[in-house]
Amino acid sequence: MSNISRLTFKQVRGSPQPQRLQAFSPPLSRIPGPIEVSDEVLFANAHPSMSHMSADFTKIFGDSIRMTRDVLLTKTGQPFLISGSGTLGWDQVSANLVQQGESVLVLNTGYFGDSFADCLATYGAQVDQIYADFGTTVDLAEVEKALSSKRYKAVTITHVDTSTAVLTHPKPIADLVQKHSPDTLVILDSVCAVASEDIHMEEWGIDVVLSASQKGIGAPPGLSILVASQKAIAAFNARTTPIPTYYASWKRWLPIMQAYEKGTAAYFATPPVNLIYAFHAALSQILNAPGSLEARLQRHKETSARIKAAAEEIGLKQVPADPVNAANGMTALYCPEGVKSSELAPALAAKGVIIAGGLGTRKDTYFRIGHMGITAVDNARDDVDRIVNALKEVVAEKTAAIGKV
Amino acid sequence: MSNISRLTFKQVRGSPQPQRLQAFSPPLSRIPGPIEVSDEVLFANAHPSMSHMSADFTKIFGDSIRMTRDVLLTKTGQPFLISGSGTLGWDQVSANLVQQGESVLVLNTGYFGDSFADCLATYGAQVDQIYADFGTTVDLAEVEKALSSKRYKAVTITHVDTSTAVLTHPKPIADLVQKHSPDTLVILDSVCAVASEDIHMEEWGIDVVLSASQKGIGAPPGLSILVASQKAIAAFNARTTPIPTYYASWKRWLPIMQAYEKGTAAYFATPPVNLIYAFHAALSQILNAPGSLEARLQRHKETSARIKAAAEEIGLKQVPADPVNAANGMTALYCPEGVKSSELAPALAAKGVIIAGGLGTRKDTYFRIGHMGITAVDNARDDVDRIVNALKEVVAEKTAAIGKV
Repeated sequence: MSNISRLTFKQVRGSPQPQRLQAFSPPLSRIPGPIEVSDEVLFANAHPSMSHMSADFTKIFGDSIRMTRDVLLTKTGQPFLISGSGTLGWDQVSANLVQQGESVLVLNTGYFGDSFADCLATYGAQVDQIYADFGTTVDLAEVEKALSSKRYKAVTITHVDTSTAVLTHPKPIADLVQKHSPDTLVILDSVCAVASEDIHMEEWGIDVVLSASQKGIGAPPGLSILVASQKAIAAFNARTTPIPTYYASWKRWLPIMQAYEKGTAAYFATPPVNLIYAFHAALSQILNAPGSLEARLQRHKETSARIKAAAEEIGLKQVPADPVNAANGMTALYCPEGVKSSELAPALAAKGVIIAGGLGTRKDTYFRIGHMGITAVDNARDDVDRIVNALKEVVAEKTAAIGKV
Repeated sequence: MSNISRLTFKQVRGSPQPQRLQAFSPPLSRIPGPIEVSDEVLFANAHPSMSHMSADFTKIFGDSIRMTRDVLLTKTGQPFLISGSGTLGWDQVSANLVQQGESVLVLNTGYFGDSFADCLATYGAQVDQIYADFGTTVDLAEVEKALSSKRYKAVTITHVDTSTAVLTHPKPIADLVQKHSPDTLVILDSVCAVASEDIHMEEWGIDVVLSASQKGIGAPPGLSILVASQKAIAAFNARTTPIPTYYASWKRWLPIMQAYEKGTAAYFATPPVNLIYAFHAALSQILNAPGSLEARLQRHKETSARIKAAAEEIGLKQVPADPVNAANGMTALYCPEGVKSSELAPALAAKGVIIAGGLGTRKDTYFRIGHMGITAVDNARDDVDRIVNALKEVVAEKTAAIGKV
């Protein structure tokens, strides 16, 4: 543990109630996940060791399963909470829902679409892709054409591609599926969207939402979060071939999730006990806050609008070409002309704001700022001002420096 | 978070330095993992959110990889530290080292041998098993016969079967492999053995040690820890068929581990950042303690001997039939005649000691006590006395009650 971080923690923890030490200003980690989390969540992550079979933990795990459903607005979806990164959700989908040789349509809006397609192909899916240009989302007419012309077992959507901040609205796509290919499963990769973007899982007809703990939900990383509709569970049960994974097999996990929800501990593999306590704390904060989930999503939209408006004022252009398709939990901005993201990042860090550069071949031309979770919802924080001020200063310095060259 | 646990944490954390609050006596969780961990490790698990790409975390991750090697006494082994439970280690072995149709010999000493065999078969291995009777380990003559009569890609050993506390000594088996089938990979499932039992990975010729964070190492659960020998890596590189997993693929993870060890962050899937800080703290405590790893293992042997001697004095028989094959990190004991483990457990819990019942069809006839980690090495703790006293009292009460019937 570095000295700075330990200091932060000790100072914050040095009081009997969690409280922010106003005099202390650690660098603000504003990458699009792992995001900074609330003190309550950090406290919960340091919960004393508990047996995964104890009554105390069983209740926490059962409640976490129920609250996961609430956050996705589904009454009948089946949550799977498994130790692993968000990536494990792709394996869950690829290994449990798709059989060797079945076709899957990947709506590819960037880096994470490429990776999901790789994962599907690894498990033997026949993958077709519809690509969006960088900074845009897929053309609905193309999606409609594909769905009308071929039978797909599933269609995958990257809700927010963390690599570009492009937001793809799932409902119009789910509607097209309903119209042209109602048996097709709608898979939503919401790693960078749960609890920061609107998701009406049941109303929209989404069959799988997969996510992770370290983004909009506001817990530490290490939990693969997936909710499957009953239609998806039925498709799983209708498999005719063996499940080609052990650790990610729903045959193993389904009885475990059902048992914990009923209040009985069951064992397949040890759950990440501390992280489940932290996840429980994060979900409780989301659902018990005034206005609950709805207010939270509204706050994300307002925060996002403030940052995007400030960026425009500074003269920075968003990566998403159309504001309608820009995420509310993060912002991706092109660098000023002649400045690389690898120069902006350390300059911003020096002013106490940690951002992420770009991803892929264009990585030096743009950068990304996360504003999920406490940045959006904690009134006591001045994160947005700090981000905007640092950005303003750094852009002014860098462009002035170029002017002098 | 329950009231009791929160109280524990707040009281312990209410001082600027981690310290035990002597007046407070929480129930002692003495199951064989997740084990209770040190305050330093809990502190580290509540480390403020850090970017997985930050210089601070990169150093911590790199150090953790190096220290993992030190704990297993290997200079050339390749560690894989992946978000997931210990079970994921089985998938890593089955999917990366064994190709469809290749034969694997499973030395089965209980529940965890059954499960490893299931996992191997899931990925297409042709599995032969040598079964040990309940409470015993495998017959070396049978192992020798099997290795001489068939070419096995790998042989798997459950180092300590957590279901029975049976310890299988890996060296004699590795020696037989060296003698009869030197190409065969020796796979050691040390989930319940790393940092509590002797492991000389390089000297003994072990090709894979797989483990988890929540047992002898003394960190919270959620990290799959695996170290592969260069022979195992060569076998992986010599594969002729595609790797049938995405999340557990070494093709994905090897460059990531190599990058972090060299001090450069790299991305495949988000690592469990907080848990890596906790794991780092746990490894540091193991290696930096006076006498380092060697002293730690000796303390585990002494603690184990004390508990086993006390159990004998109370009249309780160990599940492992031969003391030579009894684990040093846990103890499995038959219940007194006429008493079920499901009656003992709550009676012990009422006296502040949480133990685990049995596993499988015999689960009511025996119970298990964990004594890995701080119980063995923290001089300030009186865990052993508490365990022994509670056991003595409960057994006396239960047997007296039976006498009265």
